[in-house]
Amino acid sequence: MPRILETIVTTLNADGSAHLVPFGLIEEDSFYVVAPFRPSPTIANLERHPFLAAAAPIDIRVIAGCVTGRRDWATSPCDRIEGVRLADAFAHMELAVEAVVADEVRPRFACRVVHRAMHHPFLGYNRAQAAVLEAAILSTRLHLLSPDKIRSEMDYLKIAIAKTAGEAELEAWQWIEAKILAGPAPDASSG
Amino acid sequence: MPRILETIVTTLNADGSAHLVPFGLIEEDSFYVVAPFRPSPTIANLERHPFLAAAAPIDIRVIAGCVTGRRDWATSPCDRIEGVRLADAFAHMELAVEAVVADEVRPRFACRVVHRAMHHPFLGYNRAQAAVLEAAILSTRLHLLSPDKIRSEMDYLKIAIAKTAGEAELEAWQWIEAKILAGPAPDASSG
Repeated sequence: MPRILETIVTTLNADGSAHLVPFGLIEEDSFYVVAPFRPSPTIANLERHPFLAAAAPIDIRVIAGCVTGRRDWATSPCDRIEGVRLADAFAHMELAVEAVVADEVRPRFACRVVHRAMHHPFLGYNRAQAAVLEAAILSTRLHLLSPDKIRSEMDYLKIAIAKTAGEAELEAWQWIEAKILAGPAPDASSG
Repeated sequence: MPRILETIVTTLNADGSAHLVPFGLIEEDSFYVVAPFRPSPTIANLERHPFLAAAAPIDIRVIAGCVTGRRDWATSPCDRIEGVRLADAFAHMELAVEAVVADEVRPRFACRVVHRAMHHPFLGYNRAQAAVLEAAILSTRLHLLSPDKIRSEMDYLKIAIAKTAGEAELEAWQWIEAKILAGPAPDASSG
């Protein structure tokens, strides 16, 4: 069972701008596998320019923002590849696509780490950050789940928010709550 | 509402050995507050030698281990205070107690950061790590909760384990599952 690391992935669009999206990287041996579902700008971008950056956001609002239509987060130039990475990150890595497994539904890009860098000390786990991440993922699956199931998961996750959130986690939570209250809609988070 | 950071806190015992325990540090302005419930070796240790280290474990088995009777984790000397910190850490900080609010039940130690250091890049969030942390906390509250509630929370948390765990998270999960199956007992995790 491969371990999955939730990151902010950046690829380069055709016009040179950055495409920034939350993504679960699959750890496989010495590779990280990116496997977006079609249609996905990340797929088109990696086919054109096979490099990406993956960063761990310090502020969980970046992930909550990306799934609620807030995608304008500051980036910094990469060190070793042509591209950018999320600026406000605990750490990031720069990756080069080494192999592609073509697929009609979900192609897999196996990537090699070109560079890693630390930017900010990760001093501890915050349960509210984790709850926001779970709620963010839940909010992309509203069309698949019953309202009762969604409500009961949000009620459970809210306990950690109430006990351990700071201002950033609380605002992130409110963004997702509002999206869930608005109900299923075309998903804002295409990979 | 203060933010809480889950860490591994180390203090010095009277014999010079380390007392290592998972602890939620409360972020308050520029201080971190440590507020253990009595009885707690951490309280006695901080009253004798008012310094501690707090570290973010890379391996979530450290937290799962501490609540299931596995406390023998490698430490390294601190840089600026007399004491040790968890060796295998993303980052750690060294803290000095600046003020104490005495209390019969739960004294509060307000601590100033003396030093911070990064050791390993935190490259992304792992949902299984967060699920293990939640299960670890749940496992210290078995005497307060109904078996149904415990089972339903573990069933929910297990979804992230099944989807995103690596070997370390899986083993940590199994330690906690075994503790929960064994039922309520005097808690192994005294702060």
